[in-house]
Amino acid sequence: MRISIDKKSSIPIYVQIKNEIRNMIYSGMLPSNFLLPSERKLAGELSVSRSTVISAYEELKSLGLLESHKGKGTIVANNTKNKQLSIRNHTVPLSWYQFFDSNVSSANNHDIVDIINSVGGEKNISFSAGIADPSLHPLKDIVKLQKDLWEKCGNDMLAYISSYGYYPLRESLSKLLKSRNISVSPKEIMILSGSMQGIDFIGRAFLSKGDVVIVEEPTFMSAIELFKLSGAKVIGVPMESDGINLDVLEILLNKYKPKFLYTVPTFQNPTSIVMSLEKRYKLLNLAYKYQLPIIEDDPYSEINYENIYLPSLKSLDAYGYVIYLSTFSKTMFSGMRVGWTAAPVQVIKKFALLKQMTDLHVNTASQYILDKFLREGLYEDHIKLICKEYMKKRDLMLGILEKNKSLGISFNLPKGGYYIWCKLPENISQTQLLLKCSKEGVSYAPGNVFYPEGSDGKSYMRLNYTFENAKNISIGLNKLMKAIAELLQNTNSSTVNQDNYFGKPII
Amino acid sequence: MRISIDKKSSIPIYVQIKNEIRNMIYSGMLPSNFLLPSERKLAGELSVSRSTVISAYEELKSLGLLESHKGKGTIVANNTKNKQLSIRNHTVPLSWYQFFDSNVSSANNHDIVDIINSVGGEKNISFSAGIADPSLHPLKDIVKLQKDLWEKCGNDMLAYISSYGYYPLRESLSKLLKSRNISVSPKEIMILSGSMQGIDFIGRAFLSKGDVVIVEEPTFMSAIELFKLSGAKVIGVPMESDGINLDVLEILLNKYKPKFLYTVPTFQNPTSIVMSLEKRYKLLNLAYKYQLPIIEDDPYSEINYENIYLPSLKSLDAYGYVIYLSTFSKTMFSGMRVGWTAAPVQVIKKFALLKQMTDLHVNTASQYILDKFLREGLYEDHIKLICKEYMKKRDLMLGILEKNKSLGISFNLPKGGYYIWCKLPENISQTQLLLKCSKEGVSYAPGNVFYPEGSDGKSYMRLNYTFENAKNISIGLNKLMKAIAELLQNTNSSTVNQDNYFGKPII
Repeated sequence: MRISIDKKSSIPIYVQIKNEIRNMIYSGMLPSNFLLPSERKLAGELSVSRSTVISAYEELKSLGLLESHKGKGTIVANNTKNKQLSIRNHTVPLSWYQFFDSNVSSANNHDIVDIINSVGGEKNISFSAGIADPSLHPLKDIVKLQKDLWEKCGNDMLAYISSYGYYPLRESLSKLLKSRNISVSPKEIMILSGSMQGIDFIGRAFLSKGDVVIVEEPTFMSAIELFKLSGAKVIGVPMESDGINLDVLEILLNKYKPKFLYTVPTFQNPTSIVMSLEKRYKLLNLAYKYQLPIIEDDPYSEINYENIYLPSLKSLDAYGYVIYLSTFSKTMFSGMRVGWTAAPVQVIKKFALLKQMTDLHVNTASQYILDKFLREGLYEDHIKLICKEYMKKRDLMLGILEKNKSLGISFNLPKGGYYIWCKLPENISQTQLLLKCSKEGVSYAPGNVFYPEGSDGKSYMRLNYTFENAKNISIGLNKLMKAIAELLQNTNSSTVNQDNYFGKPII
Repeated sequence: MRISIDKKSSIPIYVQIKNEIRNMIYSGMLPSNFLLPSERKLAGELSVSRSTVISAYEELKSLGLLESHKGKGTIVANNTKNKQLSIRNHTVPLSWYQFFDSNVSSANNHDIVDIINSVGGEKNISFSAGIADPSLHPLKDIVKLQKDLWEKCGNDMLAYISSYGYYPLRESLSKLLKSRNISVSPKEIMILSGSMQGIDFIGRAFLSKGDVVIVEEPTFMSAIELFKLSGAKVIGVPMESDGINLDVLEILLNKYKPKFLYTVPTFQNPTSIVMSLEKRYKLLNLAYKYQLPIIEDDPYSEINYENIYLPSLKSLDAYGYVIYLSTFSKTMFSGMRVGWTAAPVQVIKKFALLKQMTDLHVNTASQYILDKFLREGLYEDHIKLICKEYMKKRDLMLGILEKNKSLGISFNLPKGGYYIWCKLPENISQTQLLLKCSKEGVSYAPGNVFYPEGSDGKSYMRLNYTFENAKNISIGLNKLMKAIAELLQNTNSSTVNQDNYFGKPII
């Protein structure tokens, strides 16, 4: 029983002691019948007079909280809490599920994913994660930069900063975006806690129940979830090899009045498809014709293996129809949670309002560090490094897939980005493959999570090659191929085509 | 015109050059009639053969993007963009306001606050901010800790981490909460991007349009805004000197079926009132009787000048009715954005789902640093320091208010926390006082922003004493007193009682 008192306080010491013991009784820390130290012992421990402790104990006894127990000493009285909390006969723990909003209740739970992932345990080889290679983190540079910064402006880095973001970082990003041919001033840029927060703010700023949102099909899983969370109906438009099917899009634009289109035009997640230049122009023309805002999400364009340089929609848009999102999470690392948006000023202002009400501002120190990283010109070399290393891993994975083509898997050849999008052979059950792989300690992203209607995409899988090292890619992918081969041998299984909607992998 | 080529790439160099120039034309970086370098000059700059550049230029000419201009050289063709973007006659910049959701549209804009704050400029003395004293940041400790951490686990600090939070930090917080008499396991704790994110998640998890939420009146401004953002009707229950008016609360519980009660029981924002022990028990009994979840927000209880130690509602609640929120922002610093919640596991799981979809996880490095700070036992000493220093500032402010009591201002005596809650003299116009102070370079928080109905609380103001140094507190508060005195002399002004609802200060 640890009591602390402040002898310099204006509050009498016996009152301090009484309060502390009383609180410990009320909170249950000292249960009924707990034997307190004797008055002499406690007085000695606290270096106070015995009469001080006696006064405290006496008051607590008069409150009914302590009792003298003959032979033992002073104990905590029985059922103290019950006397205070007139507990109703039928008080039961609150069932929180009844209180959750229906949108959130129906949001997919992750129990199933947890089960799958736990089967493999820690040695799990993950092709499901959309995560940067930790061995390529520019750690040395970061350690050096932040050391300088803590010395020069440590206090500023611990302090509150504008919801719009650290202004010098907005300037650095304005410069970075110019190299992507996007001309925006710092005032049209806002720093976010990851580009996913941008998608979240877009959902919150624009959507209410019943609104329609158009997305590519398949598309980034979390975008689908977030738009649904805001109550919107999410309609998918099929992807073709050169981007979204614009004919289908136009039909939908005529039929509904969607709030916006969400697109990932370069090295799309999950397909790695690049929208052709022609389609980019046609898409903008459609947007202007139908007054359709476009959300352009661009995390991957710099992860570029074959010098594919197509102008972003944002760079081509002269009329302020495009909200552009990007991030450092895929090129650098996820841990700092720093992304940004380039958007018309009215949108930036609305986002800043949301930011001020939700998490206030992005971690200050991270913004200082990333700004310095950009200003020291370290970013370009880092990009070159990751493109080189990721291409090797891509090629390794492609090689193994190529070798196993006879299984009937088809897959695209990504020219950049993070993923290979594969179609499974006929008659393979996604559920069974997931479980089999899981037992082997391998995970991948099942295709259906990337579709607005979870029942689609069951024959697809997304394989990430950036996260694991070469050895694990080899081991894991060969195990996956083996699992497919084994399932193909059992194609008479009655569970074929009974795929359930499984949970989500790591983004 | 900077072109970069990769001689090792499998893509022919003339294609690379062509693509780069083409992109620059399309994005407008090279406008119509722009004179390109001669083929010889560009070849020299890129260290390639002249015929390579000629091939690139010729292809672009055949695409209609470049033209030969006799006498000049090769120029960007006219109206290239117009040929590609069949711009409709009536394409105008998109008006984004029409797209914003009505809840967000009606969320208060900050223009007025910006105007007010800008009048004073950078020398503004702020009593409106709810921000920790930067001179008390434990900077030396933080610098040392993070230096050790970067050396030992730098790569982990840059990496993705669980949405639930860094597990060791959850353990450290479990221990910290025990000293607040709250007994929860790490699994019942989740790390948030500030406690405000906890309020945001609560709004998103529980509320939809038309739901009723009960708050204290006045209360934390951002909580009101966030609950309204989720479409809820926010009803205030008046505060008394010992906490919320429970009789009024019970009437409301009978009348509505509120989703929850939001309360700040200890050193409440803005009043600094402490809910009595008796009321804490009665409130819990009401909660059990009416199946009412309670959100207990506790940022300030450790900022304690007179050894007030009342058990939190969370520590008294045996039935899982209380979601407890807290943060490091008020005791330590705001810049890292780290707060937490202690809540029933079903609630934690739902929050983790929201977290995974919004900003994924709290900045990793910050969690490592704060965990180490706790484990090295540095927190308790820091708390002692800030209590000592903040009490001095409180007393300084109280002294000045006391000296000016003849003006007719009344104010409470906060026993802890961040603020003094004052009632202005009769016949003082809040609007006029705000403007007058602003011209003098002093800001404070007008009372009405803390009320669900913005028209209430016009006679109150909240003064923060933690942020400014002693000199500024003196100068600023005396200016404020002078402004009040001057306004009192002009009580015949026709603008008395025509207060508009003003914008929000910094929290």
